[in-house]
Amino acid sequence: MELALREARAAAARAEVPVGAVVIGPDGAVLARAGNRTEELADPTAHAELLALRAAAAARGEPRLPDCDLVVTLEPCPLCAAAAAMFRVRRVVFGAYDPKGGGVEHGPRIFAAPGCLHRPDVIGGVREREAAALLRDFFQGLRTG
Amino acid sequence: MELALREARAAAARAEVPVGAVVIGPDGAVLARAGNRTEELADPTAHAELLALRAAAAARGEPRLPDCDLVVTLEPCPLCAAAAAMFRVRRVVFGAYDPKGGGVEHGPRIFAAPGCLHRPDVIGGVREREAAALLRDFFQGLRTG
Repeated sequence: MELALREARAAAARAEVPVGAVVIGPDGAVLARAGNRTEELADPTAHAELLALRAAAAARGEPRLPDCDLVVTLEPCPLCAAAAAMFRVRRVVFGAYDPKGGGVEHGPRIFAAPGCLHRPDVIGGVREREAAALLRDFFQGLRTG
Repeated sequence: MELALREARAAAARAEVPVGAVVIGPDGAVLARAGNRTEELADPTAHAELLALRAAAAARGEPRLPDCDLVVTLEPCPLCAAAAAMFRVRRVVFGAYDPKGGGVEHGPRIFAAPGCLHRPDVIGGVREREAAALLRDFFQGLRTG
């Protein structure tokens, strides 16, 4: 999660919503890391999780990551939760909960929805305060800046 | 939908699950078209819809497509439905219904889920039989081939 938080801080420095993600392999090695790049790429789907998952699969040369964990600073949105299921990750670990935009513990609750073919283990609230503070500070800065 | 069906047939010819998508601008012009490329790109999220939406936004130089329609041969999965909401498309028109993998009329019903910030108009079942036949023939070919 420390690396994911670093990616989130780096995203903030690029004026992106500060969310960072890391994909960890079975031996604990970092397969891929990414921060949010929706502004830079003008692509609202360029979320940290999707970028990291795609990069991890590319690094591995395999479209499935069944022995990997996705670690992300914010509860994944429905798109990223669906992507995590598609990439078959073993576990999703996230920092802050997202009651408005989240898709794991909130909203459509992707992994619990009928038809979901793969339900990763989920651990939420890891270093939650730091992850949430990053987002809060960023949006406060936008309002007052 | 004819163009989307063509993209689906072209996908089948590449040994990809035959799904095709087109993004139509407000004047009826085709902004982008794509077929499924999950095998080619070894990326389970390289669905026709996501590729077409991303290409349309890039063609426009704008991350939002509020005056555009997404036309796709199969009911979008949760990932693609979430992407359509994020790209703010006006309307989603699809061919075959997908009771197992769909995310619009089935599964997590993304547009109806709490927290969904944009709910496109939805028209399902357009040239449904042709779109479904393409998929059925493709999977039958895999089993018998």
